[in-house]
Amino acid sequence: MKFQLAIIGGGPAGYTAAEAAGKAGLSVVLFEKNSLGGVCLNEGCIPTKTLLYSAKVYDYARHASKYAVSVPDASFDLPKIISRKAKVVRKLVLGIKAKLAAQQVTVVNGEAYIVDKNTVRCADETYECEHLIICTGSQTVIPPIQGIDQVSYWTHRDALDNKELPRSLAIVGGGVIGMEFASFFSSLGVQVTVIEMMNEILNGIDRELAASLRTEYSKKGVKFLLGAKVTSLSQDDEGIHVHYENADGANSICADKLLMSVGRRPVTEGFGFENLNLELTERRHIRVDAHLRTSVPGVYVCGDLNGVSLLAHTAVREAEIAVKDILGEPEEMSYRAIPGVVYTNPEIASVGQTEEVLQANGTSYRTVKLPMAYSGRFVAENEGSNGVIKVLVDDKDTVLGVHILGNPASELIVLGGMMVEEHRNLEYFKRFVFPHPTVGEIFREL
Amino acid sequence: MKFQLAIIGGGPAGYTAAEAAGKAGLSVVLFEKNSLGGVCLNEGCIPTKTLLYSAKVYDYARHASKYAVSVPDASFDLPKIISRKAKVVRKLVLGIKAKLAAQQVTVVNGEAYIVDKNTVRCADETYECEHLIICTGSQTVIPPIQGIDQVSYWTHRDALDNKELPRSLAIVGGGVIGMEFASFFSSLGVQVTVIEMMNEILNGIDRELAASLRTEYSKKGVKFLLGAKVTSLSQDDEGIHVHYENADGANSICADKLLMSVGRRPVTEGFGFENLNLELTERRHIRVDAHLRTSVPGVYVCGDLNGVSLLAHTAVREAEIAVKDILGEPEEMSYRAIPGVVYTNPEIASVGQTEEVLQANGTSYRTVKLPMAYSGRFVAENEGSNGVIKVLVDDKDTVLGVHILGNPASELIVLGGMMVEEHRNLEYFKRFVFPHPTVGEIFREL
Repeated sequence: MKFQLAIIGGGPAGYTAAEAAGKAGLSVVLFEKNSLGGVCLNEGCIPTKTLLYSAKVYDYARHASKYAVSVPDASFDLPKIISRKAKVVRKLVLGIKAKLAAQQVTVVNGEAYIVDKNTVRCADETYECEHLIICTGSQTVIPPIQGIDQVSYWTHRDALDNKELPRSLAIVGGGVIGMEFASFFSSLGVQVTVIEMMNEILNGIDRELAASLRTEYSKKGVKFLLGAKVTSLSQDDEGIHVHYENADGANSICADKLLMSVGRRPVTEGFGFENLNLELTERRHIRVDAHLRTSVPGVYVCGDLNGVSLLAHTAVREAEIAVKDILGEPEEMSYRAIPGVVYTNPEIASVGQTEEVLQANGTSYRTVKLPMAYSGRFVAENEGSNGVIKVLVDDKDTVLGVHILGNPASELIVLGGMMVEEHRNLEYFKRFVFPHPTVGEIFREL
Repeated sequence: MKFQLAIIGGGPAGYTAAEAAGKAGLSVVLFEKNSLGGVCLNEGCIPTKTLLYSAKVYDYARHASKYAVSVPDASFDLPKIISRKAKVVRKLVLGIKAKLAAQQVTVVNGEAYIVDKNTVRCADETYECEHLIICTGSQTVIPPIQGIDQVSYWTHRDALDNKELPRSLAIVGGGVIGMEFASFFSSLGVQVTVIEMMNEILNGIDRELAASLRTEYSKKGVKFLLGAKVTSLSQDDEGIHVHYENADGANSICADKLLMSVGRRPVTEGFGFENLNLELTERRHIRVDAHLRTSVPGVYVCGDLNGVSLLAHTAVREAEIAVKDILGEPEEMSYRAIPGVVYTNPEIASVGQTEEVLQANGTSYRTVKLPMAYSGRFVAENEGSNGVIKVLVDDKDTVLGVHILGNPASELIVLGGMMVEEHRNLEYFKRFVFPHPTVGEIFREL
């Protein structure tokens, strides 16, 4: 069978590319060995947000008295939370299927194998293609810690489908995934300990906001071991023992369950990727240009696989850019304003440069910082909770980075992204009328 | 005492103008006879949102089972809800006081009287000023319905401070204020009936969205009498009787309490306004130009008083424009993209033209409509609730209006406002990366 475009991987990059190319009239085949939507939809972004929202509703109930509402007794049904998650995922997978069907995309459910840049095999079928977009995503990194094979641990996937609440949970890795699960399980009453090798959680996020969030979660009962390198793991009747070393020396903690969330890495094996002989960067990532072209003409690599950002929304944008290039309407990918969100409660959202990076680069900058309480709506809806917006500007007041702690940071950060992407200054939002009262109005106060 | 700028009225227009002018180095006196913040902060936008948030928390608790959280019993403490509201208002009033103090604004708590354009009297003191900004706001309209003097009714102000829940409440006027109180009281279990003279609630809002919201509230038990003209009011031991006429003829309903929310009108009397002899428009509003200048040089009228939009955020922007004009940095006021929000649950938010206005003007347009369920996050966080985004574009795909039903519409509508204000087309947001998953991403799907 012949197609103008073959896509390997049905995650955010893959389904976005397929829909866009199909809409533009290309004949498209998309290969996905598991479920459409990829990790993001099936075991990442969406399922975590569904679980976190149940936890939020439970939190609202338990803390309703802040708003003069009395809830003497609240409980939750974890199996039902999990099955609601499954229902939400199913609904959205069906949505993607429908979108692809509407654009006449051929979806092949199976393991694709790249023979060469114009030939893909799947089952006993051979598919010929003019262009190839590869977006096989990433997988959980399991570090070679001593004893890891002797203990039963969770990855995020197990944590998402777990229907029995442990009393205690050790999370190795205090990044975004680690913190979102720390939030979920601690809301449900699990004693959570986060073990982080760096001196602060959420590497890459503004240090001040990360520290504030950690303080919030410490108050909620989450324990943090920072600057703690896990040396070995063991398991006995008591539970799983995590042995670590930190500034105080060697020590260990014990928990019912262990979640490994130290990071993710591109999926490059098992599908004939090596047959393309793509050029790599010094850091051993696939080399792609601003159009997501690889060193082999007609072959594009988008999403986590290229190792640039490992975020679903980056993958989506990259896929759009790749398809535009195929269609002969080239645009350049910009990574200047890729937002990052931590869906804890409160949320952290961030875009552009951090103080840490600017300092490391020796860039001079000025910090404009406002408490979120400058917004009347924030005060009305966030009793007893503080937040902050921090904007970093250069000598000409051009916005370099925006960092927000406080709900709904995730929905507001795109405004910061617009400032960063378009080199706007602090005055930018003053000429737009924001409805009052909203939290977003704070952008007019900068 | 001599000042460069005198401001009459300490609401959103007044305090914004005072802070901006003070920051720019002008000597400023601000007169406020009640509390800083005006109706918006003391008895409007902010207090209603505070009450509505308590109602939302109560709603979350009662409907927690949608998210697999069980709350067998939830109750609320209305006096505490009211006192929390008072606390939020106090905090924000103090915030404004602090901001004005930081800019050396002289705040005079008393009734100002305009002697002429350069002279204001308050108590026994006379204040001279070079420029005058008048922003005395608006007040509730009480229509001359037969019997209105014989019944005890609430205005929004009484409803905000009421500490004893009626069993039933009749609301005359299904506009934004009426619907926000309908939402609050029906959430708390009051049998609410909304009586609206027009054939649909929320005049000025997209008819389809207004009808959807009405359907939602009907399901929650709110009764609507549409196309119903109130003919008289009476009160006896049973309660307050609202007599009305609609297509079915004459009828009446009886309720414990009655809220009058038919509209607001500018406050033009009692402070010597007439001494300025300002030119009026045909509709008997104060004539102001795009800089908020009146017919008398040096005199500006901002906010509800000029009768243009009666929204706090319009007043804020007008005040900024007026101060810029005084400072010799003129900008023009644009009313093209003033958002409007109804803080019901779900929220409606709207900006730019409606289909109704475009049709009335004979403008050709195309409608782009998406269910909010296109956003994975919306699906994750809005179980059993639908929403819609409707965008109206002209022949060149330029966005004329954006209308959203679904949370958090209030925080998202500014994106629509940017499209409308800057004559953007549907492609505008495609080049920005929105974090995934967010509800705002839907702007990339248009």
